[in-house]
Amino acid sequence: MPNAAPIIHTSAPETDQAIDRTVPDFPVAQSSDEDNYFQTNTAPQYLDELRKETSEFIRFHQATGKKVVLVTSGGTTVPLENNTVRFIDNFSAGTRGATSAEYFLESGYAVIFLHREFSLLPYSRHYSHTTNCFLDYMAEIDGKIEINPKYSKSMLEIYQKYQHARDQNLLLVLPFTTVNQYLFSLKVISKELHQLQTKALFYLAAAVSDFFLPMSKLPEHKIQAQDHNGGKLVVNLDPVPKFLRRLVDSWAPGAMITSFKLETDENILLKKANQALDRYCHQLVIGNLLQTRKKEIVFVKKEGEHPVVWYRLTDEELANGVEIESLIIPNVIKEHEEWIRLHK
Amino acid sequence: MPNAAPIIHTSAPETDQAIDRTVPDFPVAQSSDEDNYFQTNTAPQYLDELRKETSEFIRFHQATGKKVVLVTSGGTTVPLENNTVRFIDNFSAGTRGATSAEYFLESGYAVIFLHREFSLLPYSRHYSHTTNCFLDYMAEIDGKIEINPKYSKSMLEIYQKYQHARDQNLLLVLPFTTVNQYLFSLKVISKELHQLQTKALFYLAAAVSDFFLPMSKLPEHKIQAQDHNGGKLVVNLDPVPKFLRRLVDSWAPGAMITSFKLETDENILLKKANQALDRYCHQLVIGNLLQTRKKEIVFVKKEGEHPVVWYRLTDEELANGVEIESLIIPNVIKEHEEWIRLHK
Repeated sequence: MPNAAPIIHTSAPETDQAIDRTVPDFPVAQSSDEDNYFQTNTAPQYLDELRKETSEFIRFHQATGKKVVLVTSGGTTVPLENNTVRFIDNFSAGTRGATSAEYFLESGYAVIFLHREFSLLPYSRHYSHTTNCFLDYMAEIDGKIEINPKYSKSMLEIYQKYQHARDQNLLLVLPFTTVNQYLFSLKVISKELHQLQTKALFYLAAAVSDFFLPMSKLPEHKIQAQDHNGGKLVVNLDPVPKFLRRLVDSWAPGAMITSFKLETDENILLKKANQALDRYCHQLVIGNLLQTRKKEIVFVKKEGEHPVVWYRLTDEELANGVEIESLIIPNVIKEHEEWIRLHK
Repeated sequence: MPNAAPIIHTSAPETDQAIDRTVPDFPVAQSSDEDNYFQTNTAPQYLDELRKETSEFIRFHQATGKKVVLVTSGGTTVPLENNTVRFIDNFSAGTRGATSAEYFLESGYAVIFLHREFSLLPYSRHYSHTTNCFLDYMAEIDGKIEINPKYSKSMLEIYQKYQHARDQNLLLVLPFTTVNQYLFSLKVISKELHQLQTKALFYLAAAVSDFFLPMSKLPEHKIQAQDHNGGKLVVNLDPVPKFLRRLVDSWAPGAMITSFKLETDENILLKKANQALDRYCHQLVIGNLLQTRKKEIVFVKKEGEHPVVWYRLTDEELANGVEIESLIIPNVIKEHEEWIRLHK
């Protein structure tokens, strides 16, 4: 069969001569890679509005004195057409991000929630992605529609937390869909968060594509089959520059930065986490495996020999609905407090 | 720049010699293509359960004497890995399918709703994909959570319709995610619907991928960048066999079949619709453009010279929330009644 190994690109494109091939992962982005990205790809039209909202939110919390965390959540898309019918997506319902945001709010943080549109949101997540329809939470009682009494107690508690976050202006919800929207938004938000120095925390849980189709390569219309011999489709994607290093170096130096590493092969998880720390010099990588991500995660820290700490739920805790974010967030906050203390 | 036209596959794979290159679109699937698909790809584990539910639903409505429509809705995914982190998706929130299902139910049809999991559902669609959170429909009144009085009247009406469909067993909701799950499900449901002969209607609104990665090509784990020189990713996909013809010929001959054609280039829409009719010999293609799909659609019929009828909403109707499905469904039903009459 031809193309039996469809994922392997067998000829080295000339453009990549600058790449250090000694690291068995993406080359570290040359500083020019990111600049070039923002020069050759178009900013989303709403970017100024997003900057304004973010700036007001941060100024507000400079006054309240709260620590502010940027939680990114959900998967980015890579459109394969300009009028997008087809796109490449990253698996993520946004559970980790939406759940973590709630725990940060309950721990006294103000939260900027940069999420994939229609992925899970803090609080509403408890109801929105259930396979049984939203209307199943309702009931008709004396000709009036009500919350089904079965659910009303727990829903009231969640509703009150949600209202508190809204009333106190503790939660700024910003959406993205494409990886391009995500990258431009991340840059803008980071530069605003820079004002908070060490009080800013980055919690980058979004599943960001490692690949993208430069706008210069995007076909205008839906890909037509006659474009391909034999109706085959070959999609040829460029690597997304690694913006994490730029975030650490120049967008928001002083902030504490936590990134995630999701793998499916446990044999490479720690190696990849350590590589990320060595490369980007940020403070913390939280590693997890797709298969067990709700039961166990691992902290790999920058300091010294990259100490490794696993956090696990027992099967009993899992069965009782304990969420692993109840272990993650307090420990991330400990790291953040230590970070603030060290940089006083 | 290398790969400047990333979507074009420049060498004709040997496997495609049988293909008729005179038609400027996908080759007609050789009968062996579909058989080969079902032999070389694994059926979803839940398929027998799905067959059982479908069979009971259809037997129930053989008794009620209702016409039964299969509405397919939402986009299919093409996993790029076996432990799926990345996948190719088709743009679709499921609006057309979910909305159409409601109009079919209100017109007395029983509906099998084969939909992309977490895409819009009949009735709950009015609330689930709003960007303002589901909890925004609630209110705390005297320490009790209630539906916000602003929304309760319209929500009650929708709830009652939803309950009616449930109580009368008029709606069978079946999910899929991957194109493989969709194809196996379509085959099973079609063979069950065959019992209803002309009383069965197919309304295939799902955005089904034209391409897939055969299981034999799927990498087990998350694609690692070191697999690619320079961190580029090349995805090489095979065409999905065209099952519509098999549906017409042998799965459910006698049923009326309506398919959709979504394009972004209006200059090719009618050509593609006519090609589909000529190739698959089904009864009706409903054409629409991504940009205007909520405002205008076109019927292209099999009979004679493929008569073309446009249905459009005025801007005023659009502004008043009139849904174009209120024009589509009654006219599809007219075609179905004619189909039944002709085959008495």
